Amino acid sequence: MAEFSSILLEKAVDELAKLPGVGRKTALRLALHLLNEERVATESLSQSLLNMRNNIVLCKKCYNISDNEYCSICSNIKRDNELLCVVADMRDVMAIERTGSFNGLYHVLGGVIDPINGISPNDLRINELVNRSINENLREIILALPATIEGDTTNYYIFKKLGHFEGKITAIAKGIAVGDALEFADEVTLGRSIANRMPFNR
Amino acid sequence: MAEFSSILLEKAVDELAKLPGVGRKTALRLALHLLNEERVATESLSQSLLNMRNNIVLCKKCYNISDNEYCSICSNIKRDNELLCVVADMRDVMAIERTGSFNGLYHVLGGVIDPINGISPNDLRINELVNRSINENLREIILALPATIEGDTTNYYIFKKLGHFEGKITAIAKGIAVGDALEFADEVTLGRSIANRMPFNR
Repeated sequence: MAEFSSILLEKAVDELAKLPGVGRKTALRLALHLLNEERVATESLSQSLLNMRNNIVLCKKCYNISDNEYCSICSNIKRDNELLCVVADMRDVMAIERTGSFNGLYHVLGGVIDPINGISPNDLRINELVNRSINENLREIILALPATIEGDTTNYYIFKKLGHFEGKITAIAKGIAVGDALEFADEVTLGRSIANRMPFNR
Repeated sequence: MAEFSSILLEKAVDELAKLPGVGRKTALRLALHLLNEERVATESLSQSLLNMRNNIVLCKKCYNISDNEYCSICSNIKRDNELLCVVADMRDVMAIERTGSFNGLYHVLGGVIDPINGISPNDLRINELVNRSINENLREIILALPATIEGDTTNYYIFKKLGHFEGKITAIAKGIAVGDALEFADEVTLGRSIANRMPFNR
């Protein structure tokens, strides 16, 4: 772009414009905002992004993002560790935590079975879930996957894999609009769909 | 926010949400995007922001942002150095450069006279402009300030200060919508308003 008299500014705009939903005009506005602020603002932003990217790990137990070996939910002794909620994505953990309706632990699959996009059961943490169903003293496993065909497929696949499991297997109520991802459901609807969970329907 | 299982993520979201037009939901989306990308993406973004903020300076001649002592416009020998365009802001330089209608040099005032917001002539680079009108061999000075009351006030103030100047003093044509800032004008309108500039009307 010929209008940039500074290569440093142009490079910063290029990088900002790579973020999702950020066009070049917005990127320029953000860059000029940082130029107008004190240096410490840019340093604080950059450092927090680097700290996040370089130090966040996946919890060894539930595969949610975590600052330590085990995440703050898995290591919270006040949570009900006999109740396990299976979700596709870490954003679903956040969405359910926001409802305040669930006090158990999570298992983050890392997606749902989706052959069209090349995601097979082996790409997900389903074996890890089976291991937890054997090694942990769980009384109930709640399937909280998206209300899509892929989510349903994954539900059935997991249900078959958990044939040995003697506790209850439930799925969140289809109170959330069919076809929607969990993270976009409103908190009341999502909270109720957890409260009204039903025995898994073969 | 209780839903964050990671303090590192929460801190990154806090910092991103300080940017103009970025709410907490958008900030979270940006942070998760960076977590999904390779580390080098975050490093490249952070480094480019730091490089920009720490190394960009103001051109010693025109006060546009610059990577060196003199900006790429001032040091371009192909530009017409007898023609000077006075603008309020560095974004106005970009807007005019985008039109491709101007091949002279710039002088960035750093704002316009605006008593209500406490901006007096001494806060602007008007003395520096007067010095340039004396020391440089200019045949024309184009006033390209916003078409607002404050812009008009600044035009008159500068015109008075340039009483000694023997070249032409012009103002960009009021082709741009009155009340609008230059950076939001479309390129054709802004380009024409430069082409149709008229002798300054006392």
